[in-house]
Amino acid sequence: MSTDRVGASVMDGLVLTDHHCHGVAPAALDRAGFEALATESSWPPPAGTSTFDSQLGFAIRRWCAPLLDLEPHADPEDYLARRRELGPAEVNRRLLRAAGIGTFLVDTGCRPEELTTPKETAELAGGEAREVVRLEHVAERVAAKGTEPPSFAADFAEALAEAARSAAGLKSVAAYRCGLDFDPSPPSARDVERAAARWLGDEARAAGTAPRLEDPVLVRHLLWTAVELGKPLQFHTGYGDPDADLLRCNPLHLAGWLRATRGTGVPMMLLHCYPYHREAGYLAQAFPQVYVDVGLAVNHTGARSAAVIAESLELTPFHKALFSTDALGLPELHYLGAVLFRRGFGRAAARWINDGEWSRRDAERVAGLIGFRNAARVYGLEGP
Amino acid sequence: MSTDRVGASVMDGLVLTDHHCHGVAPAALDRAGFEALATESSWPPPAGTSTFDSQLGFAIRRWCAPLLDLEPHADPEDYLARRRELGPAEVNRRLLRAAGIGTFLVDTGCRPEELTTPKETAELAGGEAREVVRLEHVAERVAAKGTEPPSFAADFAEALAEAARSAAGLKSVAAYRCGLDFDPSPPSARDVERAAARWLGDEARAAGTAPRLEDPVLVRHLLWTAVELGKPLQFHTGYGDPDADLLRCNPLHLAGWLRATRGTGVPMMLLHCYPYHREAGYLAQAFPQVYVDVGLAVNHTGARSAAVIAESLELTPFHKALFSTDALGLPELHYLGAVLFRRGFGRAAARWINDGEWSRRDAERVAGLIGFRNAARVYGLEGP
Amino acid sequence: MSTDRVGASVMDGLVLTDHHCHGVAPAALDRAGFEALATESSWPPPAGTSTFDSQLGFAIRRWCAPLLDLEPHADPEDYLARRRELGPAEVNRRLLRAAGIGTFLVDTGCRPEELTTPKETAELAGGEAREVVRLEHVAERVAAKGTEPPSFAADFAEALAEAARSAAGLKSVAAYRCGLDFDPSPPSARDVERAAARWLGDEARAAGTAPRLEDPVLVRHLLWTAVELGKPLQFHTGYGDPDADLLRCNPLHLAGWLRATRGTGVPMMLLHCYPYHREAGYLAQAFPQVYVDVGLAVNHTGARSAAVIAESLELTPFHKALFSTDALGLPELHYLGAVLFRRGFGRAAARWINDGEWSRRDAERVAGLIGFRNAARVYGLEGP
Repeated sequence: MSTDRVGASVMDGLVLTDHHCHGVAPAALDRAGFEALATESSWPPPAGTSTFDSQLGFAIRRWCAPLLDLEPHADPEDYLARRRELGPAEVNRRLLRAAGIGTFLVDTGCRPEELTTPKETAELAGGEAREVVRLEHVAERVAAKGTEPPSFAADFAEALAEAARSAAGLKSVAAYRCGLDFDPSPPSARDVERAAARWLGDEARAAGTAPRLEDPVLVRHLLWTAVELGKPLQFHTGYGDPDADLLRCNPLHLAGWLRATRGTGVPMMLLHCYPYHREAGYLAQAFPQVYVDVGLAVNHTGARSAAVIAESLELTPFHKALFSTDALGLPELHYLGAVLFRRGFGRAAARWINDGEWSRRDAERVAGLIGFRNAARVYGLEGP
Repeated sequence: MSTDRVGASVMDGLVLTDHHCHGVAPAALDRAGFEALATESSWPPPAGTSTFDSQLGFAIRRWCAPLLDLEPHADPEDYLARRRELGPAEVNRRLLRAAGIGTFLVDTGCRPEELTTPKETAELAGGEAREVVRLEHVAERVAAKGTEPPSFAADFAEALAEAARSAAGLKSVAAYRCGLDFDPSPPSARDVERAAARWLGDEARAAGTAPRLEDPVLVRHLLWTAVELGKPLQFHTGYGDPDADLLRCNPLHLAGWLRATRGTGVPMMLLHCYPYHREAGYLAQAFPQVYVDVGLAVNHTGARSAAVIAESLELTPFHKALFSTDALGLPELHYLGAVLFRRGFGRAAARWINDGEWSRRDAERVAGLIGFRNAARVYGLEGP
Repeated sequence: MSTDRVGASVMDGLVLTDHHCHGVAPAALDRAGFEALATESSWPPPAGTSTFDSQLGFAIRRWCAPLLDLEPHADPEDYLARRRELGPAEVNRRLLRAAGIGTFLVDTGCRPEELTTPKETAELAGGEAREVVRLEHVAERVAAKGTEPPSFAADFAEALAEAARSAAGLKSVAAYRCGLDFDPSPPSARDVERAAARWLGDEARAAGTAPRLEDPVLVRHLLWTAVELGKPLQFHTGYGDPDADLLRCNPLHLAGWLRATRGTGVPMMLLHCYPYHREAGYLAQAFPQVYVDVGLAVNHTGARSAAVIAESLELTPFHKALFSTDALGLPELHYLGAVLFRRGFGRAAARWINDGEWSRRDAERVAGLIGFRNAARVYGLEGP
């Protein structure tokens, strides 16, 4: 049987849990707005070029066009025209519903005012949603509401505990704020107070805006406070927008942190990881509390995502890999993330079956582990 | 249809632009001379072994032998004997002409006295050539001709502007001279003068030779002077000969430089990139002015080059990837670079077509973008 | 012909030399003990999971089960039950004998008291064995027997010369002890004496145990003493257990060491290398005295090992790649290492043959080079 047919049969009927995504844009998007959400760049491409000319752009035209009643590989113009014609609500509904994702763990810390809430996202999809709380976002809200250096630690702990009460997990963007090569030890109360004083100082106060939390002492303090709550802690690792220095997003920089927190038993969820997904696989094998995904990369590498998924499963134990989309803004990304994961894992597994390396039964079991069972176990979600 | 036939049909009739190569050796080469040009090593291989035992060596025997009227996979001895028999002029002509490269952008800063000029190279190939001017080479010629620390900056600016007048682009080997992890800010005039004084100092003067420019302050000064000219600026990145420290050739070290120069609009061309071609793809997606190739690696990885090309097209937008050979000395490298690119991109695209991920029309369009259109747009070359 | 049949025919009759492995456990293993030897982790996996759920676990069930009279893909429980039933001596004999390894170079410096000796290992396999002496182990024995700072250098030199007399090669675990980014220059006698004084100081003496040698000055001293003996020197590089910081195990950190020792002609054997096997391939091409393997990774990546082997042969000259298993404790690892290498190299070569890139004759010759001839040449072993 062809690998595609074997792969499809292995993945048949699998309802996924997306352990890391964002909401969709409820408003209509013009071409520039759409293209900006289909790249990790912070700037438009050069004159005369388009972000549609990328693996992600080709995958959108291939896989999403039919859901909008167009032929596969529809031209970008036609695709966007049809999108406008249907309107954002219908487009969001169609694509989210077709993804076959039953549970969404939604990070609410990135541009929440422009995106659907977890509840809205789930309703569009006909699924369930749980929140993932971003540490730095909570700290910045504490600062915006007003806090003093001596009380910042207590105020943050209270706000985080409150925000986390019904959340499935927590998330840190330390990678963007100070790099993953931070000192893994917990800072002293005195150091935290001093760092808070710098952060909340006169200049910020005068500006009247919530300052951006980038101080490594405070980032570490947030992380150690989060560990206290015992919930799975997600880390952005690997590539993302050009804000971050990719060399400092290598998850291997977390080795000291992982040694320091191993005894706590708190699951550490390494997100994205590309192009360090092999390194992440090593961490997932070496440290009992480490889990990995290649969510963002699956969408952006499009036709190449099967290869990336296969690489990510070299060292990663199969009880340590999770499905995610990291979709933000475009429901195309939720849908494609699911399609490409099914195709990619399916194709890898089918090749191993056809080559006589794996049994079909094992392949189906691993599909279930990565697709939803590992997430259910680690985040304590109810089964479908 | 087989992937090879689909791939060949996608690439059919494509006349390439090689946006980074060197000339060929006009003189006859003995075995040691030939082997030395078929490896990035600076030393002969161990006794009893041959550089022919490599992917590149196998590819030369496979693909170049028939152009010299031999069977594919001819023995190295027979290959070199036939090469001697035909003589360098005929071998250079046959291989260059068969490459299907219409335009050569030739870096003239590496051993120019041993290689054909851009004009000679183009004539052998029946194509066009444009020069790429190497910054460090210009600076070293300025020093050799005589300059003083206070006037070095002006003398270099004048010499570079003169050299660049008819050039298609500029090139830096900062990777070899001080590593890509240089401070990205422009040095002050005073710092440049001081660094020039050290470089041009008594010792160098006494030696009576053009000193090698390795000072990071001067390297940065060269780069910022080059940016003023507005022409595309090529950077050696990734592997090359063992002179450089490969860890410091990771193009991610350029992130600060790319942030600092984004506003200038000067295209930054990351050459080779291997084994950091995925990292380079991220930079090409993240920064509007960044372009990439995997030229050198395509030749040296031979039968594996299709895989390297496919990896390089994971994150790189298709308007940001370029074809190059980085061929130097051996016309085999110009020819093979073209053959392996056609086969490698063709095979990758054919697989995506056969798997239903890409349309054939898109594949043909992307082949044209990478093959010559992106180079034409970025370097302002006339179309074929 | 199918790639598998072509691959099998290329590898037909090849008797391998494993240039880096360890002994097997002569005692019976319970489930926890078996699982601990089937992962690079130092800790058990999370509750409810098993190290059998990994590429290595799947490969054991697939390939080793039939040698214990079970069906391929036997359940872990059944596999371990049958293993207990047969007893360790029979299991060790069956698996080692089936590996088709004629010569074992056995590192005796890791838990020797729990493993078979080189002689015992060879007898179980019906092959030959030679020892590989671990520098740090010898130094720690010297310290345990009693030495003084001023005499340490001489005592170590004498002990190493004695241990190395009949050894095939030497090995360093500098990667684990201080990282590969050590200063490559030889330390002065005075620095060595001072470092030895710190290492052998009162505290260690009071504890009455052989201290662990981690001082970078001493590690460098061991290495330079080893170079004097002229035997091939193996380095752990790339991943391994979580003791080491993987970022500092990147073999590229050895570039300075390789430059400093090139003139000595001592072969430098880079072991494992994953996920830096492409970087290692560059070093093997660039430096005449550098050799590489991907032994450990072949076992742990199981169904993906063909891809890893193919990647490792991009830049590595074919006279510079060696076969190894890095098997330790489980005879499954010796057997699987051989099976997966035969399948993986065979499949890669078969694809290149079928695609018209390599000739079959060349493929068979390269199989022999990697399989045993390169090891015979470098270690001065007698041919089969």
